Amino acid sequence: MIRAFYVGRFQPFHYGHEKILNTIAEEVDEVVIGIGSAQKSHSTHDPFTAGERIEMVLKSLENFPIRHYIIPLQDVEYNALWVSHVKSMSPKFDVAYSNNPLVIQLFTEAGIEVRRTAMHERSIYSGTAVRKCMVESKNREWAEFVPSTVAEVIDDVSGICRIKRLAGNDD
Amino acid sequence: MIRAFYVGRFQPFHYGHEKILNTIAEEVDEVVIGIGSAQKSHSTHDPFTAGERIEMVLKSLENFPIRHYIIPLQDVEYNALWVSHVKSMSPKFDVAYSNNPLVIQLFTEAGIEVRRTAMHERSIYSGTAVRKCMVESKNREWAEFVPSTVAEVIDDVSGICRIKRLAGNDD
Amino acid sequence: MIRAFYVGRFQPFHYGHEKILNTIAEEVDEVVIGIGSAQKSHSTHDPFTAGERIEMVLKSLENFPIRHYIIPLQDVEYNALWVSHVKSMSPKFDVAYSNNPLVIQLFTEAGIEVRRTAMHERSIYSGTAVRKCMVESKNREWAEFVPSTVAEVIDDVSGICRIKRLAGNDD
Amino acid sequence: MIRAFYVGRFQPFHYGHEKILNTIAEEVDEVVIGIGSAQKSHSTHDPFTAGERIEMVLKSLENFPIRHYIIPLQDVEYNALWVSHVKSMSPKFDVAYSNNPLVIQLFTEAGIEVRRTAMHERSIYSGTAVRKCMVESKNREWAEFVPSTVAEVIDDVSGICRIKRLAGNDD
Amino acid sequence: MIRAFYVGRFQPFHYGHEKILNTIAEEVDEVVIGIGSAQKSHSTHDPFTAGERIEMVLKSLENFPIRHYIIPLQDVEYNALWVSHVKSMSPKFDVAYSNNPLVIQLFTEAGIEVRRTAMHERSIYSGTAVRKCMVESKNREWAEFVPSTVAEVIDDVSGICRIKRLAGNDD
Amino acid sequence: MIRAFYVGRFQPFHYGHEKILNTIAEEVDEVVIGIGSAQKSHSTHDPFTAGERIEMVLKSLENFPIRHYIIPLQDVEYNALWVSHVKSMSPKFDVAYSNNPLVIQLFTEAGIEVRRTAMHERSIYSGTAVRKCMVESKNREWAEFVPSTVAEVIDDVSGICRIKRLAGNDD
Repeated sequence: MIRAFYVGRFQPFHYGHEKILNTIAEEVDEVVIGIGSAQKSHSTHDPFTAGERIEMVLKSLENFPIRHYIIPLQDVEYNALWVSHVKSMSPKFDVAYSNNPLVIQLFTEAGIEVRRTAMHERSIYSGTAVRKCMVESKNREWAEFVPSTVAEVIDDVSGICRIKRLAGNDD
Repeated sequence: MIRAFYVGRFQPFHYGHEKILNTIAEEVDEVVIGIGSAQKSHSTHDPFTAGERIEMVLKSLENFPIRHYIIPLQDVEYNALWVSHVKSMSPKFDVAYSNNPLVIQLFTEAGIEVRRTAMHERSIYSGTAVRKCMVESKNREWAEFVPSTVAEVIDDVSGICRIKRLAGNDD
Repeated sequence: MIRAFYVGRFQPFHYGHEKILNTIAEEVDEVVIGIGSAQKSHSTHDPFTAGERIEMVLKSLENFPIRHYIIPLQDVEYNALWVSHVKSMSPKFDVAYSNNPLVIQLFTEAGIEVRRTAMHERSIYSGTAVRKCMVESKNREWAEFVPSTVAEVIDDVSGICRIKRLAGNDD
Repeated sequence: MIRAFYVGRFQPFHYGHEKILNTIAEEVDEVVIGIGSAQKSHSTHDPFTAGERIEMVLKSLENFPIRHYIIPLQDVEYNALWVSHVKSMSPKFDVAYSNNPLVIQLFTEAGIEVRRTAMHERSIYSGTAVRKCMVESKNREWAEFVPSTVAEVIDDVSGICRIKRLAGNDD
Repeated sequence: MIRAFYVGRFQPFHYGHEKILNTIAEEVDEVVIGIGSAQKSHSTHDPFTAGERIEMVLKSLENFPIRHYIIPLQDVEYNALWVSHVKSMSPKFDVAYSNNPLVIQLFTEAGIEVRRTAMHERSIYSGTAVRKCMVESKNREWAEFVPSTVAEVIDDVSGICRIKRLAGNDD
Repeated sequence: MIRAFYVGRFQPFHYGHEKILNTIAEEVDEVVIGIGSAQKSHSTHDPFTAGERIEMVLKSLENFPIRHYIIPLQDVEYNALWVSHVKSMSPKFDVAYSNNPLVIQLFTEAGIEVRRTAMHERSIYSGTAVRKCMVESKNREWAEFVPSTVAEVIDDVSGICRIKRLAGNDD
């Protein structure tokens, strides 16, 4: 039995994350999904709360083929402690998946195997692009980037209204 | 659809928690289980990490009849912020279950319905009693208090050895 | 012009505090009143929020003869920084009033003059006694210890109900 | 009786703030003035301590027509907790005044009415402009932006010297 | 070359610590001495600042036979992160010396060798005993417990006066 | 006997720091060297842990003519408390050396004498330049900027590999 760890901010959860998780599902038996910067919300860079992001991931993985655990991870603002923080908050795991340079470096120094994930088209599969689209969208262009389950959560919390106002773009 | 919130320290998860969760399962459709004081571990009062406690709960609820979410909750050390902290970290919920006076008071002031859980025999169903037994056990007397799935997790991390040493009881 | 500094937890504001402030008013021109442990509330030791305590003090000092400033002070949990914290959060002051050994020592080491306040009968003029009475009161015995303005604030927030429940004394 | 809440960083208190407070005074009976980012000082963006800012506000509102309370508010760095933090530290209020998108969004989500304040000429009534002028002023050009009571406080703490040095502009 | 790590609160540094360090000096080539709970001071349990404790240790080890490093260590209040905290703040070390159950357990779980130190008479070689004596001493009985270099530091900061006042024992 | 205080981030320790320390050694009898932002590491701006930086400084000052103390200093994120933090963590000192505007301002306001250090060629003697060179170096061009003792520490922890990866420059 191999259990993987995969961390993201999921602001919001989009098709890029889904693709990576599908790849992970082919290679391991279980995956722990860490919701990074869990304490952050209500900014244009981090619009959604951890609870909202948990709902996005959960609903999008209804039919996910392998067992998965979702855990919010607050920042520690002290990089040298981050791996211990993750290990303390998470069920044990055997391998980590990431393309984030800091995450790769920290896990590697701690002797934990890290596997790179295939890079997908950044213009389509990027949180930055999705959030920019949310702020600027007249209709529901942003909904193209995310599973319909995620769009539901966002609508449910009036998320587009929130991010537009935070961007000073509400009129 | 009614979703409940139930928080405990689960140091360790024992039959008392299981009984309460079974009651909750009869009354609601889904339950969010908060792992309280998630940042605490390695003391006689809080021997296990949040990750270890998540494993205990997960494995013990394999056949649990309703959908459940498990989220670690770090302390905020500022009671007036606790309800907002919980709401920010958790999927939305409709009702909370608790017998803890502080939890009851805080949720009540925030306008959230709280249901008391039936009180079970404290000598058998109490974390304090289980931990005391762990420290003093010669054989595996403590294992009587917890599901076998929990005993497995504890054995896996040499938990009895850990709590005995922390209590200055290792020789 | 002499401005004094006086800090208390004011859980709740009672006649003992009032007596001390009256003494201070005779000796100086203005007083800064620090609400200590401002982030604490909802425990039997610290039942009221800083906001509630500010209301108690404000209303009780309606006719106070000298100008007064009320500032909430969060704990710093690092004694050597406490005087700098106070000085940073408060309008400048010339002298401090206290009977608290730690406060006296810290101000003294920082070169700030500290004046002791006359000690009043501890059984009547003590926060501990007032809170104990609140928890145990059948009628409104606790109201004897505090100005009627304070009793009003406490009633307004259902404070007796709160402290009784926190003490596990609500039935 | 209507009590309002108004928060600003007041780095420093200037005529723009005064205008807004005068408007508030026409609409409500009392106002709580929150000193935001209270723990910050000694940077070009936040040159003054909370204590210094309290003095600025107090002195400028000597003849203010309605009752006002001034409370320093330390940052919580966790937006979802901010409203609870404010409510815990402040006397109760009925309505908030703000033009800050984050403040508006957070209060609105918490069900608290927010009123926009009239926008005044940003080039004259802006903290950024005042601080830039302080750093660059040869004579006392900056004093045009603030009430004379504020200029007094700034002079009293050698504030121009401080901000110039912090900007690397002292020679 | 073997470098050891040894941590203590050193409130104050006394002959018990000196004995342990002499033993360590016989077994290794260098030693890192961690000043635990560095942020604590001005209480009867932790009377001295980290800076004062550094001076005590430094002066007492003037002629110490092996190279030694002294580093203050602030608490992290999150046991699972403590070893990473120590490793991040300290030059690399090969072995730890301790009799503290928590320290032993944490280093052991992290795969770091821990050596127990010989236990000395607790009534003579205990910080608790020294501090109790300081509070109660009429003459200089406490000075028997500590190197003269430590007594000098304590006198220099009026340490006995400080601890007596903090204990409410100053008259 | 005059003891100085000198603080830097030492990311990494380079010839510029060595020059300044040599100047200090000519003017005072002892020096406390504070390792600033001690909790930061594993970023391109702060690549090395406090422990690694302590090793760099220690080894580079093997033959330093005056007695020196090295203490890691975690950030307090509250400028008005910084001087008290430093004084609490450090052996007493008489004078501070710095060219940092914030450090100069804070010590000056606290009544501590600050001496400017001679400015050396910024292109050669700057941490920013050294780190940029580390990220871009094909061979060991960065090693020109630092004492060979520092290069050894960096090699020992695979520091160049670390900073290159953190910069997204590893291929």
